[in-house]
Amino acid sequence: MSIAHECVRYAKGMVRIVLGLTLVCGVVPAARGAAPALMPLPVKVEARSGSLAIDGNFNIGAPKCADARVSAAAGRFVERISRQTGIPIMGGRDVKLTLACTARGADYPTLGEDESYTLEVTPTGATVNAATALGVLRGLETFTQAIVPGAAGFEVPAMRVDDRPRFPWRGLMIDASRHWMPVPVIERNLDAMAAVKLNVFHWHLSDDQGVRVESKRWPKLQEMGSDGHYYTQDQLRQVIEYARQRGIRVVPEFDIPGHTQAWLAGYPELASTPAAYTIGRTWGIYYPVLDPTREVTYEFLDAFISEMAAIFPDPYFHIGGDEVNPKEWKESARIMAFAKEHKLDGPEGLQAYFNQRISKILEKNKKIMVGWDEVLHPDLPSATVIQSWRGNAALAEAAKKGHRGLLSWGYYLDHLRPASYHYEVDPLGGPAAQLPPDAAARILGGEACMWAEYVNSETVDSRIWPRLAPIAERFWSSKETTDVNSMYARMEVVSRNLEWNGVRHRANYGPMLDRLAGGRPAESLRVLADASEAQGLGPRARAMKYTSLVPLNRFVDAVRPESELVRAMELAAKRLVSKAGQPGDEEFLREQFTRWAANDPRFQELANGNALLAELKGLSKDLSALGAAGLQLLDAQAGKPLPASWIAQEQTEMTRLSKVQVEVILAAYRPVKLLLDAAR
Amino acid sequence: MSIAHECVRYAKGMVRIVLGLTLVCGVVPAARGAAPALMPLPVKVEARSGSLAIDGNFNIGAPKCADARVSAAAGRFVERISRQTGIPIMGGRDVKLTLACTARGADYPTLGEDESYTLEVTPTGATVNAATALGVLRGLETFTQAIVPGAAGFEVPAMRVDDRPRFPWRGLMIDASRHWMPVPVIERNLDAMAAVKLNVFHWHLSDDQGVRVESKRWPKLQEMGSDGHYYTQDQLRQVIEYARQRGIRVVPEFDIPGHTQAWLAGYPELASTPAAYTIGRTWGIYYPVLDPTREVTYEFLDAFISEMAAIFPDPYFHIGGDEVNPKEWKESARIMAFAKEHKLDGPEGLQAYFNQRISKILEKNKKIMVGWDEVLHPDLPSATVIQSWRGNAALAEAAKKGHRGLLSWGYYLDHLRPASYHYEVDPLGGPAAQLPPDAAARILGGEACMWAEYVNSETVDSRIWPRLAPIAERFWSSKETTDVNSMYARMEVVSRNLEWNGVRHRANYGPMLDRLAGGRPAESLRVLADASEAQGLGPRARAMKYTSLVPLNRFVDAVRPESELVRAMELAAKRLVSKAGQPGDEEFLREQFTRWAANDPRFQELANGNALLAELKGLSKDLSALGAAGLQLLDAQAGKPLPASWIAQEQTEMTRLSKVQVEVILAAYRPVKLLLDAAR
Repeated sequence: MSIAHECVRYAKGMVRIVLGLTLVCGVVPAARGAAPALMPLPVKVEARSGSLAIDGNFNIGAPKCADARVSAAAGRFVERISRQTGIPIMGGRDVKLTLACTARGADYPTLGEDESYTLEVTPTGATVNAATALGVLRGLETFTQAIVPGAAGFEVPAMRVDDRPRFPWRGLMIDASRHWMPVPVIERNLDAMAAVKLNVFHWHLSDDQGVRVESKRWPKLQEMGSDGHYYTQDQLRQVIEYARQRGIRVVPEFDIPGHTQAWLAGYPELASTPAAYTIGRTWGIYYPVLDPTREVTYEFLDAFISEMAAIFPDPYFHIGGDEVNPKEWKESARIMAFAKEHKLDGPEGLQAYFNQRISKILEKNKKIMVGWDEVLHPDLPSATVIQSWRGNAALAEAAKKGHRGLLSWGYYLDHLRPASYHYEVDPLGGPAAQLPPDAAARILGGEACMWAEYVNSETVDSRIWPRLAPIAERFWSSKETTDVNSMYARMEVVSRNLEWNGVRHRANYGPMLDRLAGGRPAESLRVLADASEAQGLGPRARAMKYTSLVPLNRFVDAVRPESELVRAMELAAKRLVSKAGQPGDEEFLREQFTRWAANDPRFQELANGNALLAELKGLSKDLSALGAAGLQLLDAQAGKPLPASWIAQEQTEMTRLSKVQVEVILAAYRPVKLLLDAAR
Repeated sequence: MSIAHECVRYAKGMVRIVLGLTLVCGVVPAARGAAPALMPLPVKVEARSGSLAIDGNFNIGAPKCADARVSAAAGRFVERISRQTGIPIMGGRDVKLTLACTARGADYPTLGEDESYTLEVTPTGATVNAATALGVLRGLETFTQAIVPGAAGFEVPAMRVDDRPRFPWRGLMIDASRHWMPVPVIERNLDAMAAVKLNVFHWHLSDDQGVRVESKRWPKLQEMGSDGHYYTQDQLRQVIEYARQRGIRVVPEFDIPGHTQAWLAGYPELASTPAAYTIGRTWGIYYPVLDPTREVTYEFLDAFISEMAAIFPDPYFHIGGDEVNPKEWKESARIMAFAKEHKLDGPEGLQAYFNQRISKILEKNKKIMVGWDEVLHPDLPSATVIQSWRGNAALAEAAKKGHRGLLSWGYYLDHLRPASYHYEVDPLGGPAAQLPPDAAARILGGEACMWAEYVNSETVDSRIWPRLAPIAERFWSSKETTDVNSMYARMEVVSRNLEWNGVRHRANYGPMLDRLAGGRPAESLRVLADASEAQGLGPRARAMKYTSLVPLNRFVDAVRPESELVRAMELAAKRLVSKAGQPGDEEFLREQFTRWAANDPRFQELANGNALLAELKGLSKDLSALGAAGLQLLDAQAGKPLPASWIAQEQTEMTRLSKVQVEVILAAYRPVKLLLDAAR
């Protein structure tokens, strides 16, 4: 298998294309011309001569593929390309893009189905060839990513792509329970998932804070457990069909026996400790847990799972099983007596017993169980798929025991770590790298997780995107695709191109800042936000008592997890201190530092009398101080010496600024620190 | 009637509120705190002590108004307020906003219906009182505009508002023919219209480039005259109902007998010169025109108008009648013989005859005719309403002759004139100011016009908003509300708040720039765009041969008609040269000039090899030169003298830069010119 860094470069007068391919090949050039930024990076890309024009005559020919998803996709992609380029596409006589497959795929995408494709682009036309409809869909996304504004207008550079995924299970989990995610939020994220070739949507549909499905058998689930925010069965089917059209499987998760307080609002008789329950509003691990000892529990779940199994066509069915709090079981003489009677090893044995019972219900419904790490137990049927939030070691352990597994540790989007952090995590990394081939083959891939304590339908996109794109690359591209600078350069472009798929990770930034400023022109607030990075689960949980009713309308909610501006400044500062400065580096830094230095008086005026901005007054002062220090350090670079006492004082300041304030990090300190460290 | 500049200021420790009211009262302070920006300015606003908190407990009590529109609006507004503030509103026990009306309004809004309301806000609750549902809707918009982030969170300052409109007909026309405007585009604009208290949506539904309605009687209209882009009858009804819920009347326009080439694609037998017709793709006045001499024309129109009259409940029905090209009539011996036989005065007489026949058809359908200036003729029934694109004089003339009239001259949004230009036009201005009271009373108000040669569904919002808001103020607020600085200060806030109504005038700016840059980070392009102003109809028509197939994806399409940044710089420069500079003025200008001066190398790199940016290379050089000149002029302000030759050369440069380039004006020249003129 030919991999990315082998991609061929033609020298014959193809300067622009070659420069384009340096991006494709994972080397960051001083970008020039508009080169395609492909993500995930295909297995093999060969540049060819010339390019295919995208204009009003563009069309996708009658697909040579007997799969209705392909003809539907053809129409959808013409619309999307029209949106992306702004060209009203009426279609001309000659077919510009031909789609072909050798056999139609399964009606519903199956795990391990062939997703490979080739894409051939010439100046007169392009062809996607694939084994099945799935490959055609993947190839269409590559073609669309490759559209760039070229020297004569929009075009796709001529090339040949050979591509196939590394892992068969490449997923995103969205928690729709802790904050409600309406159908359009799910659908636009499915479109964006498809754009980066993900193929599993794991839908976390119940938790302590809400049961988000309509049950006809147990209607009090949604009536008393959802605040009226749930998917009707028609909507569930609509989303499944939407995903199917895009070659994405939908795996539902109903988290049991813990994380079930919202179930108990309507059906308290299922609880280990019967009481009056209400929907959970706070975060963390709750005490309430289903009673594993009573038949009523299994009768209820049998009916519920059978009802849901009939709606979700995927053979995999996720039962959660994480973070079961043993307190209520341990404190119940009745339950502990049951454990003893059945020779169950305390709470763990009780959960294993529970899982075995559930496993039988799933089997009856022709479903394969998926669960989090905690379901692993010697009594667990080996067909069960283990999703690991604990790490490569836990995953390797499960694989050794004969289970198939998915890695989610390292892909927790709600922690708001930088893209580079996630990019370095490999499903076959750490202890899993030492697995024998048969066990390694049981590691199916991974899933990024978007837990929803601190996101809602307005902010969720900006916590998923663009950082999910490099994770998708980790799941799809070759193991050797690891160049972080190339990843960032391509991610920045892909992030913007994802706008045409409807996700709002960039779109909601401005309005959320405008809201904080009460609609007043908010440039000073934007300068502060561009220099800050939002923090995730840990820092937010420590900041104050959050509940599902606390508005997510503050600075931290608007600010992005990773600052593009600060990253660019860090790169410039690094070049500068290593005497490898490029033209404009110093000027660029000086300009930004000047802006920061001047920002505080403007911000303070905006913040005056505004409760939502009041908490940022200190942060804003810090930013201006950083700007002033940065300017002094640039002068020092130019030869103006700095007193040692000043340097020492600034070093203390950098340590202070590296810590969380108002739930964000003032990322602006990083380029200043680079200059400071060099000045010592 | 108490008017805005009389609004009461309480001195007793209410600094923030009073400062808020300086905005409301039309004086621009150095803005401080978050003060409500109301637009249209109410007739009377009295500040009171304290404020009403908007939090998760906010609710709108069961309306004391027996009109289903009001209860629907209550639900809609809770959602909108939740979106605007980012607060999950679950509603508390105490009613926070009470809606009351003395009588339910007409099922469908009628011209002249009472829209007055009072709004009383106290720290414990608010009440909207109105005569009818319409007034309640208007009051709800005022309440929503008044929500600001205050010292303790979102709140509405306590106040009492007495308000009513100056004119009963306050409209916006959207041309859905020249470029197709899908239903969501119309609906989001209806929401935004309601937000600024407009009450008539004039829907331009047919023209040479398309017939946009489904006719069951004459299906070839949409089949051959719309490229498949038309509203089904269900969609027409859906939009009418959407508008009705918001207190907006819908007046359809079918432009006859000129502007009808798209009709003739399906029904060439209606033409004065029978031939094979196709949908028009170019702009301007076409030759084809309906044949006014043959009965088949009237039979066709009778059936069509009767079909449409049954769909549109409004008693007013617009038949266009503008820009009839006399060529075909004059050249037809048959038609001229008909004119002679019927003693008709040439083409004008023929059109008057045609209009009389149409008038009878409308009468039969209980509709009142509306037409553009050109329909005015001694034989025209006096009930006909004249919409004037020619000016106050033409309008006054029509009013003198007993017609009711609407002003649209001066409100042509497609000309992309600054908001201040439109703001100064008054329906009762110019010759109309001299009309006797009875004739003046026949001037019903006005309509802004959004003709669609150079806008499509992506750009139309940014050509309507925010400039329509001050036009709406002209139609609603007192004649004396004319402070341009107050208007701009409030418009900037209202523009941002309109985001929560769904219009995309701000949202589409970034993505359109990103598209031009092929998704590459495009800060240098944004700097150029922020300093430019898009030009309208005239300059665009002169630039090149546009057709409906030419993509509207260029710089000029992304750029806004009016630059907020440049306006702020002009204000700072004016203060500076008049020695009334405020703290930060000089620093602000220096920062912007520095950014401009540094921008060109970055832009040129981005533009390299990019056909869509190639046309901007000169503009970018000009911007950097302006930045450099601006910096020199600031130094001169500080005492560093400038050579006379340099000044002379820069003056020539300013003259050059005041002209259109690549269909935009580099507005950046204006603050530089202010400094230059002062330096002479």
